[in-house]
Amino acid sequence: MAFETHLNGHKLVVDAADEFGGHNLGPRPKILLLNALSGCTGMDVVSMLKKMRVNFEGLNIYVEADMAEEHPKYYTRMHVIYEFIGKDLPMEKLQKAVRMSEETYCGVGAMFRKAIEVTSEIKVTEK
Amino acid sequence: MAFETHLNGHKLVVDAADEFGGHNLGPRPKILLLNALSGCTGMDVVSMLKKMRVNFEGLNIYVEADMAEEHPKYYTRMHVIYEFIGKDLPMEKLQKAVRMSEETYCGVGAMFRKAIEVTSEIKVTEK
Repeated sequence: MAFETHLNGHKLVVDAADEFGGHNLGPRPKILLLNALSGCTGMDVVSMLKKMRVNFEGLNIYVEADMAEEHPKYYTRMHVIYEFIGKDLPMEKLQKAVRMSEETYCGVGAMFRKAIEVTSEIKVTEK
Repeated sequence: MAFETHLNGHKLVVDAADEFGGHNLGPRPKILLLNALSGCTGMDVVSMLKKMRVNFEGLNIYVEADMAEEHPKYYTRMHVIYEFIGKDLPMEKLQKAVRMSEETYCGVGAMFRKAIEVTSEIKVTEK
């Protein structure tokens, strides 16, 4: 069940779990959708906050998703949690950067929103 | 711009290209959508052909996609090419396996089809 895939010169193996005849040599293909969304919006947000001269120590992005119970089992809803790490971060600018990614720049989110509901929230954590 | 992502216990780095402030430490996030689709349908097809007792030497899957020219730049159309490697392969069974993945099993394709057009074709190559 393993497939070797080639992306921008990088190799990535995807594989099924043991119970579906695979050997877990790589992630399941479907979960890459969550990764695509978090990576896409994450890069937008980092890039915009840099332009806005907002400094923060880190950004974790978590994507929660619901899955259809019957075949075809696709994600029926996604929720993106942006966790910014830093002190005294300007919430309005964080919100603006996230909103610009959601409404204007993130192609992955734009495509997903044509199919399903995608929501988000922002958290700030002082380390 | 690099993000370290965690999927089913596997680590994957995504990064932007140099011209967008990244260092190409991993693939771009958006292209993972193509990978998710090819991996998802590929596993379906391999698994069904095994059940149908169809033996083939290999399967290459290519996904061609058009991209919107304006922001948000998302894929507006995808075309999946299934290239089976083998001799005297039964085309009807190959078609059936692909159709079952497209219509019933592949959750990634099902979600994408809610947003955009996804087409496919089958090629057989004797090595």
